[in-house]
Amino acid sequence: MRIDILVSGGTFDKEYQELSGKLFFRETHVPEMLRLGRCRLDLRVRTLMMVDSLLMTMRQRRRILDACRRSPSDRIVITHGTDTMVETAKVLGRGIQDKTVVLTGAMVPYKFGSSDGMFNLGSALSFAQSLPPGVYIAMNGRCFPWSDVRKNKAKGEFEPLR
Amino acid sequence: MRIDILVSGGTFDKEYQELSGKLFFRETHVPEMLRLGRCRLDLRVRTLMMVDSLLMTMRQRRRILDACRRSPSDRIVITHGTDTMVETAKVLGRGIQDKTVVLTGAMVPYKFGSSDGMFNLGSALSFAQSLPPGVYIAMNGRCFPWSDVRKNKAKGEFEPLR
Amino acid sequence: MRIDILVSGGTFDKEYQELSGKLFFRETHVPEMLRLGRCRLDLRVRTLMMVDSLLMTMRQRRRILDACRRSPSDRIVITHGTDTMVETAKVLGRGIQDKTVVLTGAMVPYKFGSSDGMFNLGSALSFAQSLPPGVYIAMNGRCFPWSDVRKNKAKGEFEPLR
Amino acid sequence: MRIDILVSGGTFDKEYQELSGKLFFRETHVPEMLRLGRCRLDLRVRTLMMVDSLLMTMRQRRRILDACRRSPSDRIVITHGTDTMVETAKVLGRGIQDKTVVLTGAMVPYKFGSSDGMFNLGSALSFAQSLPPGVYIAMNGRCFPWSDVRKNKAKGEFEPLR
Repeated sequence: MRIDILVSGGTFDKEYQELSGKLFFRETHVPEMLRLGRCRLDLRVRTLMMVDSLLMTMRQRRRILDACRRSPSDRIVITHGTDTMVETAKVLGRGIQDKTVVLTGAMVPYKFGSSDGMFNLGSALSFAQSLPPGVYIAMNGRCFPWSDVRKNKAKGEFEPLR
Repeated sequence: MRIDILVSGGTFDKEYQELSGKLFFRETHVPEMLRLGRCRLDLRVRTLMMVDSLLMTMRQRRRILDACRRSPSDRIVITHGTDTMVETAKVLGRGIQDKTVVLTGAMVPYKFGSSDGMFNLGSALSFAQSLPPGVYIAMNGRCFPWSDVRKNKAKGEFEPLR
Repeated sequence: MRIDILVSGGTFDKEYQELSGKLFFRETHVPEMLRLGRCRLDLRVRTLMMVDSLLMTMRQRRRILDACRRSPSDRIVITHGTDTMVETAKVLGRGIQDKTVVLTGAMVPYKFGSSDGMFNLGSALSFAQSLPPGVYIAMNGRCFPWSDVRKNKAKGEFEPLR
Repeated sequence: MRIDILVSGGTFDKEYQELSGKLFFRETHVPEMLRLGRCRLDLRVRTLMMVDSLLMTMRQRRRILDACRRSPSDRIVITHGTDTMVETAKVLGRGIQDKTVVLTGAMVPYKFGSSDGMFNLGSALSFAQSLPPGVYIAMNGRCFPWSDVRKNKAKGEFEPLR
């Protein structure tokens, strides 16, 4: 059972640019995180884009949908910024029936020492293996179906709609 | 759905004692790890013992079995040293039918910067929510039923028997 | 021999605000860094301001000068953003004759895992103990008198004028 | 002014061997630490030995003395285990007159996240540049002449004899 990891950017992969003092994207840290987690799953990691999810366009969300459909695997994990993760999940949820797709991300960049990234990546890969087909968001140790989740921006947490 | 986390020690929780230069146990780091992972599950963390699993006795394994049975929750995660995790899983597997119990641990202590602990904890909590009743080991991003797993000591990884 | 540490902010003390994804100041990390360094010097840490040095005003630089003059100690370390550290050093260099004052900072925030902050703090405190009266910048393991230093912004390093 | 860094092992360089759960030496982390500290000094790093200082022999201490004498540089930093740092300092103090030699180490391995190593390395390199010829121990932000220092083993700190 191979799992595809599709990288779209987000806080997960942000780094500190020491000359400018700004946050920026270089390359994804997902392979390094998998090494650190001693992960021994059969995985393929593919970077689709490296964007702040606040700036993600509908065209880019469709590109993610397209990548999920074309993937030879029917278990997919997508790393994504948390701000519009729910929107992308909706696009995928309406367009995919026969695969288990799990979106995850982080509130703090992996490189910043106190990140939730490792925890969330372990969680997302596990839900991707054990849940039936559907599109889900795995954050805060929980897993939400795409149609019943929102980001509580005041708390920085995900929660069910009701 | 509340999940019980039972702490038994293991590499997970080892620390560096700077006066002696030895590794030792103080208190469990599980609550700190859950905070770092921004975990929002309904959890109870309980320390049963703090032992190196090479030194764990059959009596202690039975104490873990007993704690699983008495737990009001039917979803349980156990942190455990990797060296004899398979033995404890067997004791639990033969003694528990109606609960989902997931053992996990780490190859490197949480406090040592490059630990697999956060990844494994996220993984174990996710499998505990999504798998049917049974006793499992969650390590290396994978999940093994208690009756089909061994630790490959040369590689430091878990694998199926065949 | 007591050393005064005056905190003015800078990259040193920046943190990641997880709700907004922006960098911000909360409290200084200097006491935590001294604990981590097992520092046993007789020190007093005082926060004068928490500012990005690009935004530091002449009025604030004069406040730092004033704090140095009023300090009961004649050995002083100042944490400061690197962008205008040289300007503040000039104000202090022209206004202080009888004290050893060492400015230091970091290219990467202390909280971000791969910071140069601990190295620079150890360096600054050592130069403050061993150098004769004067105003200095301690960065990159080196120490420069205030009148012969500039920040090479392309490299993110400090260097002598010639 | 070139500084020689002579590596002799010690807690500084210990790592966690994940298969055995023991601490061990691989290679020195000093070059990585200098990179992290953005150190721009003219340095040469040379590994003389990789030993736990409790096991260091008189023959090995004489080898360190010999390396100091033969070094083309007259500013030398030595990384050393803390347990017998004072003994080696005595051998060097009696045998070297015309060079500034600073011994330093760490109470917690560099690789273990909460190490004092970066702080001590920054400190030792600074004292090596600014102090007159002599043999010193730089620990806890302080600097002690070889003839007036002991390790307080109960506290894990260095202090003057009286």
